[in-house]
Amino acid sequence: MTQRFLFILFCSLAIATSASADPLPSWNDGPTKEAVVSFVEKVTKKGSPDFVPENQRIATFDNDGNLWAEQPVYFQLIYALDQVKKMAPQHPEWKTQEPFASVLKGDTKKVMASGKEGLMKILAATHANMTAEEFQSNVSDWLKTARHPKTNRPFNEMIYQPMLELLDYLRANGFKTFIVSGGGVDFMRVFAEQAYGIPPDQVVGSSLKAKYEVRDGKPVIIKLPEINLVDDKEGKPVGIHQYIGQRPIFASGNSDGDYQMLEWTTAGEGPRFGLILHHTDAKREWAYDRDSHIGQLNKGLDDAGKRGWTVIDMQKDWNMVFPHEKP
Amino acid sequence: MTQRFLFILFCSLAIATSASADPLPSWNDGPTKEAVVSFVEKVTKKGSPDFVPENQRIATFDNDGNLWAEQPVYFQLIYALDQVKKMAPQHPEWKTQEPFASVLKGDTKKVMASGKEGLMKILAATHANMTAEEFQSNVSDWLKTARHPKTNRPFNEMIYQPMLELLDYLRANGFKTFIVSGGGVDFMRVFAEQAYGIPPDQVVGSSLKAKYEVRDGKPVIIKLPEINLVDDKEGKPVGIHQYIGQRPIFASGNSDGDYQMLEWTTAGEGPRFGLILHHTDAKREWAYDRDSHIGQLNKGLDDAGKRGWTVIDMQKDWNMVFPHEKP
Repeated sequence: MTQRFLFILFCSLAIATSASADPLPSWNDGPTKEAVVSFVEKVTKKGSPDFVPENQRIATFDNDGNLWAEQPVYFQLIYALDQVKKMAPQHPEWKTQEPFASVLKGDTKKVMASGKEGLMKILAATHANMTAEEFQSNVSDWLKTARHPKTNRPFNEMIYQPMLELLDYLRANGFKTFIVSGGGVDFMRVFAEQAYGIPPDQVVGSSLKAKYEVRDGKPVIIKLPEINLVDDKEGKPVGIHQYIGQRPIFASGNSDGDYQMLEWTTAGEGPRFGLILHHTDAKREWAYDRDSHIGQLNKGLDDAGKRGWTVIDMQKDWNMVFPHEKP
Repeated sequence: MTQRFLFILFCSLAIATSASADPLPSWNDGPTKEAVVSFVEKVTKKGSPDFVPENQRIATFDNDGNLWAEQPVYFQLIYALDQVKKMAPQHPEWKTQEPFASVLKGDTKKVMASGKEGLMKILAATHANMTAEEFQSNVSDWLKTARHPKTNRPFNEMIYQPMLELLDYLRANGFKTFIVSGGGVDFMRVFAEQAYGIPPDQVVGSSLKAKYEVRDGKPVIIKLPEINLVDDKEGKPVGIHQYIGQRPIFASGNSDGDYQMLEWTTAGEGPRFGLILHHTDAKREWAYDRDSHIGQLNKGLDDAGKRGWTVIDMQKDWNMVFPHEKP
């Protein structure tokens, strides 16, 4: 009988521990964490007026500056510049052709000054006129060796630990989690499943047109040097409509490029949640907002209050930023 | 003790029954059913050289003539023609304007003769220049009242019972099931979840371009009268690449519009399955293939053997076609 009693006691303890385990340990206690948790609790509580059936629990996350860092420039741009350097021996003409000449000289400022036209040339050279499998394998190789210029870490380790916990927490509560990002969809799909647990079909992003053909008996998908979707600003609700096909109830972003996604999400009926990550941590990450050359957050900060969006203060709300800070 | 013995006996019986329960009862025993089952068994058997991890178990299904019927014409065309009739009072000019005049006179032959240009006009009038929500609500209303011209059944009951079982069987074995159809994605998403258990984000189809705007303070998605993707023939592998982001290991179709999807799927490395539904049942459904005005199956029949694709003979392989045949 004593044994049985001990066993029951042990089970009860295990259940109690598991129930009280914090699903968001990297989030400090406070109104931000509380807002997230109370939203999830109310939409999952059967019988509650705010209950949302599982098939409508759609959560969308921006990627750059929201799931992983975006400073000093978008990592995908670093990839493109690295590829230009790698491909240069096969393109001697690039030594005198802009914007390639500036890329090869390492003059990033002049590259950026080449504007949309210059960037389209770099995009076409590094992202198109190849099969989807070739592109995927190039990105995969790059991720294995490339290092972040400031931290010297692989780029897919520059992801936010609190966001990983939030993704897990939502999924454990019946949410389907999606990326909806201005970044390239084929680029993100290479690492999204391993980094975030988000499978390729739940990644929405900017894309190029593509065509299918059979080359020497082998079918291939060719990436074309022509924009298909710019999944940014007004393009985000369009991307959500076309790829996901229903309005999210939870949207998370960090810049004014996410404004329309949050607007579209939170304008729906019933309980909705808009979340903005404010980069306020110059020590552990970066501090930037209204005047940043990347990830500008201006209108979102002005309107968050009146729209009822929750703003994460990175410095205050997160006790850990990157997984490698774990002791 | 007798009670306990009976309880154990009952449990064992229940387990035995459940283990031997046929997951595909509407499929007759024979090589077709056997091919499907042995494929699923080998890719799900841990340690087998043909084992495929769950996150790669992607199965794609055409819709028209594959999950639901497509005779006498695509149901979405019937929807479009019904909408023209419903909208006619607001468009007195249609009485003399083709192809609308022929639609209103019920002269389907002349409507079809108006070709691509005529059909684009009907598509623009009935599928565009409205919000996505308006379109969705129109389709939903139509499905409630419209009836199939031959069977007098609601269109979303003209679905194939054996395919519902196959979808369930695949999902029970860790597959993620997708629709990849030439039909309109916004049209199919209205009924796909209820009819097939396939959520909106797992429906890939033809689409129009869309834009996002805020109208009188209310954000909306507007469907534009401009083609975004034709998800048919060469467009299917492109749709798969853009929306699903990885190559399926199982593809199911019924017409030459699915040829490239099966080609792309089965050209991948490792175990692959291509399935073609051959409409051979003039009594319970329809019999058509090489010369059909709709769902033409010609090249697929010629090449199935050499490509190792399994062909379903509807008459022979299915003991039930529609769910309403259930006793």
